Amino acid sequence: MRIDAVDFYYLAMPEVLDIGDGSQDALLVRVQAGEYVGWGECEAAPLVSIASLVCPMSHSACKPVRDSVLGQTLDDISDIYRIGALVRANSLDLLQAEHTLSGIDIALWDLLGKKLQAPVFQLLGYANAYPKLPYASQLFGDTPAQTLALAQQVRAAGFKAAKFGWGPYGLGSVSDDAAHVYAAREGLGADGILLIDAGTVWIDDVAKAQARLAALQACRVTWLEEPFVSGALKSYAALSQSAAPVKLAGGEGCHTFYMAQHMIDYAGLGYVQIDTGRIGGISIAHQVAQYAQRNNVTYVNHTFTSNLALSASLQPYAGIENDIICEYPVALKQLAWDMTHEHLLPDSAGLIHIPTGVGLGITPNLEGITPYVVDCDIQVAGKSVYRTPALRA
Amino acid sequence: MRIDAVDFYYLAMPEVLDIGDGSQDALLVRVQAGEYVGWGECEAAPLVSIASLVCPMSHSACKPVRDSVLGQTLDDISDIYRIGALVRANSLDLLQAEHTLSGIDIALWDLLGKKLQAPVFQLLGYANAYPKLPYASQLFGDTPAQTLALAQQVRAAGFKAAKFGWGPYGLGSVSDDAAHVYAAREGLGADGILLIDAGTVWIDDVAKAQARLAALQACRVTWLEEPFVSGALKSYAALSQSAAPVKLAGGEGCHTFYMAQHMIDYAGLGYVQIDTGRIGGISIAHQVAQYAQRNNVTYVNHTFTSNLALSASLQPYAGIENDIICEYPVALKQLAWDMTHEHLLPDSAGLIHIPTGVGLGITPNLEGITPYVVDCDIQVAGKSVYRTPALRA
Repeated sequence: MRIDAVDFYYLAMPEVLDIGDGSQDALLVRVQAGEYVGWGECEAAPLVSIASLVCPMSHSACKPVRDSVLGQTLDDISDIYRIGALVRANSLDLLQAEHTLSGIDIALWDLLGKKLQAPVFQLLGYANAYPKLPYASQLFGDTPAQTLALAQQVRAAGFKAAKFGWGPYGLGSVSDDAAHVYAAREGLGADGILLIDAGTVWIDDVAKAQARLAALQACRVTWLEEPFVSGALKSYAALSQSAAPVKLAGGEGCHTFYMAQHMIDYAGLGYVQIDTGRIGGISIAHQVAQYAQRNNVTYVNHTFTSNLALSASLQPYAGIENDIICEYPVALKQLAWDMTHEHLLPDSAGLIHIPTGVGLGITPNLEGITPYVVDCDIQVAGKSVYRTPALRA
Repeated sequence: MRIDAVDFYYLAMPEVLDIGDGSQDALLVRVQAGEYVGWGECEAAPLVSIASLVCPMSHSACKPVRDSVLGQTLDDISDIYRIGALVRANSLDLLQAEHTLSGIDIALWDLLGKKLQAPVFQLLGYANAYPKLPYASQLFGDTPAQTLALAQQVRAAGFKAAKFGWGPYGLGSVSDDAAHVYAAREGLGADGILLIDAGTVWIDDVAKAQARLAALQACRVTWLEEPFVSGALKSYAALSQSAAPVKLAGGEGCHTFYMAQHMIDYAGLGYVQIDTGRIGGISIAHQVAQYAQRNNVTYVNHTFTSNLALSASLQPYAGIENDIICEYPVALKQLAWDMTHEHLLPDSAGLIHIPTGVGLGITPNLEGITPYVVDCDIQVAGKSVYRTPALRA
């Protein structure tokens, strides 16, 4: 087959709020080859990734992403890896390209799964997809009382694990922050798995993070996520020395295999969190999962958009039985819910099952999506280089 | 003062060729505050950086770059650092933002230099700007004979150092590649400083690079640049073990301080090459120069566009006397030449002097630029979010 079309759709809620909720917009990717269609999703900043798909060439190592994808042969998984390498070489100096490639790579795996009549995890070499234990991913409340109420809700909804992050955490005093962590533990109950996400708030300041450790240890927090930005390896490594039994988690900001490798090699992580929609897609995320396993670091998906993105984020470690925790956004905006026909819901034991249908096992709901399409039109030197394509042929 | 306007201008040659020449287009940045105007340049992919300046917000950590700059106070250098930190926090999930910030940061330094009546290097704390020894930055010829002729031209033009890169190097056989290196050495003469740039051609394959070392050592090459992509730290470290006396150079792909820090800490580099137009501007490049000096790694600018970008690229290490080598593009496209009133030319001793005028000491030639302006128009949901602004008030 040849890749005949690569189309990007910018979707958004009618109003996008200034809160840490990534399900307020989405960039849906459709790839067509022969009679097959595959779907994927790029994480964040839809307009910027659209521009990187279609921008004029700057020089031989700064070409638009589409030029390395359209017209390429796609018959087996080696073609997906080859196309990824081509994009990385031809768009070496185009920073946004890795995010853009991510959604395309996901769509290529979905498409190939449909052609080969297999779920993506099987194409990746996994015989089985093991169920995952979802943690409810939540923003902190504005006050400890709100955090307590949110944790009680999560518990009442049947979740055995919950992550609280962003909001006021890390910005106030050490005792304010502690109050939120104690409230989360109280609401979740003594037996729940409690995870805390600092959202890079201390940048690379080890002392600020260290001051919060006592409360995290007292509340038996399983991991402290992103105390620092992704590259602050030395700060991570220093903090990891005194954090036990709390482990450090990070890596969602990685947009290459190498960045994830550095987090595993040098940061003293217990958990590496990979966003399939940023790191270069399922291909690179799977490479990281394998590397993490060899280095005794637990792999966790990072995702906060639709169930299509969620399925894509689970495939890379579907067959790694011990890496059981998965991120599961519980407060999706309506857009993210309406985007897909199928939804991944916890079973009666509270576990998430990775779809066993062909490809990603999740199909976009074109009717559901239509109201959210954001029409874009980009003109360069009087010529249209992008206009939102029709959702249906 | 308050920052009143941030304007981006996409400039390009009438025809952009599929060659490794980054001077074929440019993204010029103008920042206005009170009665002052500062100019900067972002490296590569103008349309994508424009999109990241103006895109709609995705969520609280994925905002358009302009939102963190417009309206900010700008009175002293602490404001520049504060604005940079704000962009990095508010656009954490917007990958392109670091490239976009780079041109803005450069313009802020230029503007503040004009207000404080000082060259940028003095604002950075350097008492003096030491002259630099420019190496002529050249593409390899298609054949060794062409490479020989190019090296002879460079020598005839008075350059004591030259770098050959890209083109066929690394793609052919080991002996083909050796022939190019021998030709470059012959043309440059026995006393010239010869530098070779592999342009990331071997990705992370140490064996392919090692096979080329004998010719590099025999031809007394000072550095081998970018045998691998920026993040392939282990490959760099492994190659550095057997490369002496050839040193490794790399880092142009770094777009954060941390990435450069990792190259210095873990890659066994002799030279770290920083593109001020990518890494976050003069602020971060200067931070890297200081870190490199403390760690006995030599800092070198990376630049291949206009003399405005060249001046910006030299400021971060202007006062480090021992780090004398500088990249100097000798085959600028007409656009890059026409962009500025002033030009940085080697003196009779072959040295480049960093401008001592206020700010960057280089001013854009608005008349010269006009023919190269690429008009862009970006509409989102029926509303214009970007239209190329007028060059003159």
